[in-house]
Amino acid sequence: MANAVTIQDINMAYETISHYVHTTPVFTNLTLDHLVGRKVFFKAENFQKTGSFKARGALNAVLALKSKNPYVKGVVTHSSGNHGEALAWASKIAQVECIVVVTKDTPKTKCQAIKGYGAELVFCQSPSDRKKTCDHISNEKNFPYVPTADHYDIIAGQGTIAVEFLKQVPELDAILVPVSGGGMASGIAIAAKAIKPNIKVFLIEPEGKMCELCLQTGTRLWSDPPKFLHTIADGLRLQPIGKLTWPIILDFVEKEVFSVTDEDIIKAMKFVFERLKLVIEPTSAIGVAAVMSERLAAMDTKMKNIGVILSGGNVDTDHLPWC
Amino acid sequence: MANAVTIQDINMAYETISHYVHTTPVFTNLTLDHLVGRKVFFKAENFQKTGSFKARGALNAVLALKSKNPYVKGVVTHSSGNHGEALAWASKIAQVECIVVVTKDTPKTKCQAIKGYGAELVFCQSPSDRKKTCDHISNEKNFPYVPTADHYDIIAGQGTIAVEFLKQVPELDAILVPVSGGGMASGIAIAAKAIKPNIKVFLIEPEGKMCELCLQTGTRLWSDPPKFLHTIADGLRLQPIGKLTWPIILDFVEKEVFSVTDEDIIKAMKFVFERLKLVIEPTSAIGVAAVMSERLAAMDTKMKNIGVILSGGNVDTDHLPWC
Repeated sequence: MANAVTIQDINMAYETISHYVHTTPVFTNLTLDHLVGRKVFFKAENFQKTGSFKARGALNAVLALKSKNPYVKGVVTHSSGNHGEALAWASKIAQVECIVVVTKDTPKTKCQAIKGYGAELVFCQSPSDRKKTCDHISNEKNFPYVPTADHYDIIAGQGTIAVEFLKQVPELDAILVPVSGGGMASGIAIAAKAIKPNIKVFLIEPEGKMCELCLQTGTRLWSDPPKFLHTIADGLRLQPIGKLTWPIILDFVEKEVFSVTDEDIIKAMKFVFERLKLVIEPTSAIGVAAVMSERLAAMDTKMKNIGVILSGGNVDTDHLPWC
Repeated sequence: MANAVTIQDINMAYETISHYVHTTPVFTNLTLDHLVGRKVFFKAENFQKTGSFKARGALNAVLALKSKNPYVKGVVTHSSGNHGEALAWASKIAQVECIVVVTKDTPKTKCQAIKGYGAELVFCQSPSDRKKTCDHISNEKNFPYVPTADHYDIIAGQGTIAVEFLKQVPELDAILVPVSGGGMASGIAIAAKAIKPNIKVFLIEPEGKMCELCLQTGTRLWSDPPKFLHTIADGLRLQPIGKLTWPIILDFVEKEVFSVTDEDIIKAMKFVFERLKLVIEPTSAIGVAAVMSERLAAMDTKMKNIGVILSGGNVDTDHLPWC
């Protein structure tokens, strides 16, 4: 199962998408390095197309679909966040239609962003209706459903972050990755371990996701239907890791997980705005919070060079969490 | 007068400071390019040491002082803004003392930033007292006064922005520069015109600075003592251009000046936060506002590649102007 996506798949994904996505820059900050006693490297996926890393996976998935079936007419997903924008953007490049299912209460700005890339919006009543609405559209229009994370081509696409990051900073000893469905975490883990077997990949989660206990017991302890967490990191609200990404994560990532509170996230996000001069969303700030945590401070000091993924920058600047 | 600073001085400044300052990245944005019908390149000096371009000039000035007089013990300036921080930082590198005169009502965060670089703060009653207090300290302690803009080594230091920018984007047809005392504008104009004689350098000012009329009549129409403008761009409140920078600017920059309102600045600043994912201060946003202006839209379409200086990123994120 864990070999369902290989470094070859990820390298191939990189060839497929690299013409369209940005090679995102890496930032460092001396103040932070002094504060934490290690060198920290931030991979700024907030500068990625559509404002988040999701562009990589979405484009790889849509182009893979087209290469398997050149007659595919469209794709469908449900997401009120970065994946919705990313799939809309990717579909425009691949010249296929895109339908994004969102709940009725989705903020106007998010709807406009998705429509801005030419996708069609379909509204449903509640979060629990989204998948059903998606399946209905998928069956009726014969549009494949492209999920946010739990899909091998998505995983391969997100894995390209690690390929790029390790080219830019080969000395990385560890990479810290925010985890929701696990598309980015599994892709990065496969690529990083294949390129540099000694590297450590750590998950960062919002409080209550229970990844550490799940990983240490090797068990999916999450309820089904899934719970949603109360966290300011709106990209990380789904509690369970995906079913395809889980065995990969179990194989490749460390059993110690960074668990972060809203308070930590807000403090870290403000630090990034003020010191790194980068606009990031709360989901990105979770990695910065992990770097600033006592848990990292207590870890082996031989782990000198820490990579952190700033996953995206799509934040409502009218309502910053500290204002 | 206009040859008081040459491209050789600027190249020498670049050699002097390049080990300590960042080569700041250049950003582009397709949405904006489509909007304005030209290619726009942003030189991100918000990522510069101390969070603004001022680090370049301040370091060049302090190192030049030290090279002329190795026994110089310290420097003094008045500034509650970016120059204060920059001179404090530069003095630490040059291992000389630094005294920064600020008014009693200077925000705590600004004072802390200046003190954070090891400078001493001296408080005075009002803005009009600052220069007098500075002169007093300068005489008493034999510390040279390093002004924010009107100083040949400052001009040469700021000119390095253009050297770097034209290496990164040789195809630039024009550079738009925010102007206050004129240190950056004059330095950039000298360097850009020497490297690429056909390039156009335009000033951008907050409404009420009257640069266009001054340039077109070749006259300093500003009152003495100087007026301060009511603008959200707090780095650009001083109305007159400096006495050393003025003849350089008169020689080298275009006679058409972009004059920008607070409303334009706030709109542009928000665009940069939301689309470019960069934290900039209002003074930086003035360049973006100029790019979005009808005045630029009406200009020669052969001017295809526009460079804009994002001068700094030191903004109070607790009080963003649109919140």
